[in-house]
Amino acid sequence: MTDKLTHFNDQDRARMVDVTAKKVTFRTATAQGQIHMQATTLQRIEDGQIKKGDVLAVAQVAGIMAAKRTSEMIPMCHLIPLTGVDIHFHNNGQDTITAEATVKTKHVTGVEIEALLAVQIALLTIYDMCKAMDRGMVISDVHLVEKDGGKSGHFIFDQQSK
Amino acid sequence: MTDKLTHFNDQDRARMVDVTAKKVTFRTATAQGQIHMQATTLQRIEDGQIKKGDVLAVAQVAGIMAAKRTSEMIPMCHLIPLTGVDIHFHNNGQDTITAEATVKTKHVTGVEIEALLAVQIALLTIYDMCKAMDRGMVISDVHLVEKDGGKSGHFIFDQQSK
Amino acid sequence: MTDKLTHFNDQDRARMVDVTAKKVTFRTATAQGQIHMQATTLQRIEDGQIKKGDVLAVAQVAGIMAAKRTSEMIPMCHLIPLTGVDIHFHNNGQDTITAEATVKTKHVTGVEIEALLAVQIALLTIYDMCKAMDRGMVISDVHLVEKDGGKSGHFIFDQQSK
Amino acid sequence: MTDKLTHFNDQDRARMVDVTAKKVTFRTATAQGQIHMQATTLQRIEDGQIKKGDVLAVAQVAGIMAAKRTSEMIPMCHLIPLTGVDIHFHNNGQDTITAEATVKTKHVTGVEIEALLAVQIALLTIYDMCKAMDRGMVISDVHLVEKDGGKSGHFIFDQQSK
Amino acid sequence: MTDKLTHFNDQDRARMVDVTAKKVTFRTATAQGQIHMQATTLQRIEDGQIKKGDVLAVAQVAGIMAAKRTSEMIPMCHLIPLTGVDIHFHNNGQDTITAEATVKTKHVTGVEIEALLAVQIALLTIYDMCKAMDRGMVISDVHLVEKDGGKSGHFIFDQQSK
Amino acid sequence: MTDKLTHFNDQDRARMVDVTAKKVTFRTATAQGQIHMQATTLQRIEDGQIKKGDVLAVAQVAGIMAAKRTSEMIPMCHLIPLTGVDIHFHNNGQDTITAEATVKTKHVTGVEIEALLAVQIALLTIYDMCKAMDRGMVISDVHLVEKDGGKSGHFIFDQQSK
Repeated sequence: MTDKLTHFNDQDRARMVDVTAKKVTFRTATAQGQIHMQATTLQRIEDGQIKKGDVLAVAQVAGIMAAKRTSEMIPMCHLIPLTGVDIHFHNNGQDTITAEATVKTKHVTGVEIEALLAVQIALLTIYDMCKAMDRGMVISDVHLVEKDGGKSGHFIFDQQSK
Repeated sequence: MTDKLTHFNDQDRARMVDVTAKKVTFRTATAQGQIHMQATTLQRIEDGQIKKGDVLAVAQVAGIMAAKRTSEMIPMCHLIPLTGVDIHFHNNGQDTITAEATVKTKHVTGVEIEALLAVQIALLTIYDMCKAMDRGMVISDVHLVEKDGGKSGHFIFDQQSK
Repeated sequence: MTDKLTHFNDQDRARMVDVTAKKVTFRTATAQGQIHMQATTLQRIEDGQIKKGDVLAVAQVAGIMAAKRTSEMIPMCHLIPLTGVDIHFHNNGQDTITAEATVKTKHVTGVEIEALLAVQIALLTIYDMCKAMDRGMVISDVHLVEKDGGKSGHFIFDQQSK
Repeated sequence: MTDKLTHFNDQDRARMVDVTAKKVTFRTATAQGQIHMQATTLQRIEDGQIKKGDVLAVAQVAGIMAAKRTSEMIPMCHLIPLTGVDIHFHNNGQDTITAEATVKTKHVTGVEIEALLAVQIALLTIYDMCKAMDRGMVISDVHLVEKDGGKSGHFIFDQQSK
Repeated sequence: MTDKLTHFNDQDRARMVDVTAKKVTFRTATAQGQIHMQATTLQRIEDGQIKKGDVLAVAQVAGIMAAKRTSEMIPMCHLIPLTGVDIHFHNNGQDTITAEATVKTKHVTGVEIEALLAVQIALLTIYDMCKAMDRGMVISDVHLVEKDGGKSGHFIFDQQSK
Repeated sequence: MTDKLTHFNDQDRARMVDVTAKKVTFRTATAQGQIHMQATTLQRIEDGQIKKGDVLAVAQVAGIMAAKRTSEMIPMCHLIPLTGVDIHFHNNGQDTITAEATVKTKHVTGVEIEALLAVQIALLTIYDMCKAMDRGMVISDVHLVEKDGGKSGHFIFDQQSK
């Protein structure tokens, strides 16, 4: 563990960390999150997947497009030309949809934030498209699942630590 | 409750709902969310507020700027000229920071998504700036707290329903 | 018909035309365009609509999102808060898909360019997603179909004039 | 020819194709398109080039700026740092302007979509700036002319196939 | 004069000021700025205006497009649908170009920052396009010239106060 | 010194210069600029740094975020994935704040414009946040201080030449 926040300069104001000397390596990150809703809302979304109005198709596109624009949204994030973004959705058959995004690049810095943003935006798009039915939906458990590549190496989220 | 998703057209593909005929009214929305972290990470953020490197000042700016660009990120959201955005942070003195965003407008449609996005981006900025210390942080309980104005009227989040 | 280009100032350089004094009215515009492809490419897209991989769902989202950002792409276009955007696709059962976009607002200036951009981006998204199969696709006949509202009144495209 | 659309994942939803392992090579793409107008409109544009109000200078800037932002507009396009963009205009002396854009990069994936978008936006800018004179203009024959570099190799558009 | 910075909340962090209750009025702002260069650089720009390569045409487009996106760049600025933007250039016949931008709207808050940003971006575009000739150019005297509309009333810049 | 503007093509319209064949090298650029204000305005900003409302923290974030988006604002600028951005502020204890930005990359073209834009946007953010107190502020002396890397080599601004 590092004992300081690397994002501040000698005037104690934020800077975009200098990664000029870091090595270009393959990097990948997977993040996950959930949205909890009423059972009827989930039912409605599942119906749409089959016969009409696939909410998740729109959420998928939104999440992927957001990942590409992470550096515009998160102030100290470096712009990274991503080489792959994918999102999968699962539901518990009751009241919860899980989104999982995997982002890849070959660059000097990692793509954890890109994966987390893809998840956040995919889930918020679900909220947006269903809000006329259900304004009480809750987005939870958004976290990094795994990342690899770069100096800090391999990270796997410890479910116990939640 | 509406029994259908209003965001789909007769070809069962997404559309931006027609709000042309809706009335311009004052609208406000408040959303909230949390980020859970190690106790040492929170300690470090709190130290920064006092003497150096205010992570939350950066998160504040990020959340406000994101709220203004919601319609670029969330596919079926209308562009809304916001008339006010503010974010407050609180912590539990242990391991959790809560962000609460309030967004206002005088327009034909509501600003719930704007408030939720401000919260998400503020929390993800905290994650980004502290990730070198703590990659296991979790963003949770992102939900609408209250909204007012417009045809659907006043909404208050029911804590029981979580 | 006006006999001069209104977009130039007294130094003969482009300006964003002053519409400050124009009246806020309901305005709508419909635009259309086509993409021509190999018969096997269209077959593949149609298959996807039924059982997997709906290219047009992605094109729909892309077109709608682009309409909202028209003023960023087209230099002299005013930013207009759109109140509705919808896109429909049709095909000739052989080798051509037609996209038709309708855009609405209640504002001081029209939304023709927004409708045309939605069509262009929806069609280019189809190209992008099918280009591994068919790089020879051609986008054609992109034009305004109809517009209403504002001082210049009702316009209907004259098919003869093509 | 590939017999499947590579842009879909195992859930049959769109993904940004993984190009992590592809080789960095020089890549170039040229695209072309036309806008048809009334003879008086073309006359007016040509007059502007000589003595005042060069519509094409604005269209040129718009097309180049758009090419750089292709990945924001086209959902499954990778962000590519372009190394060169140029656009040329020609007219048939009667009623048609042709725009031809050439885009270059040294990257893992091609720039066909960037070239096509540059053409589309340049032509739509012409439409925008002349629409007060002529709302019946038609954008046609937007297609890839040639591309080189990358695994799929050299492509030249076959005029016969139109 | 106000004796406090209105852009901070009770946690002493920045907020986007609440203008919900302010009146919609016509508002205009004019800003100005200069770029100083070598005499040969100005000569080269002037030549371009006449026979080839009009640097100022590009700067004009850049300044106008930037004005529309002010709220994306300046964190606490409200998004304002502008109703008019124009820029004029003058030179002293020796080594200095002056850019003057006028921005208009009918909205609840003023457009001073929009006019200033248009000037800054127009001047920086000149720098960019001439930097191969002259890297020592200096941008100076960027200030508000005049603004009108809104509660704070009419402002005219006092040349003496510089 | 080059005797022509490299940004124009054979039709005398702007192009994004072809840098495909240029070498990837470390590149850095430092730019500087000032904002002049009333003594009471500077006093107010300094008070904020200590006990509340740090204007410069917001200006810092704005400048860094703008640097990353330079290619969206300046028409002929290449998109460059920046590897580091930092900004420092100094004041003369009386009526002037100086902002100095340093930008780094490892790419085929330089980052002078990115550094200059970071300075411009940081200073305009100060203006925006203090304008309720002082509308007569002037932004001046924005120039490149130093740049290194690339074929044109090392440049140091000559103070005498101003």
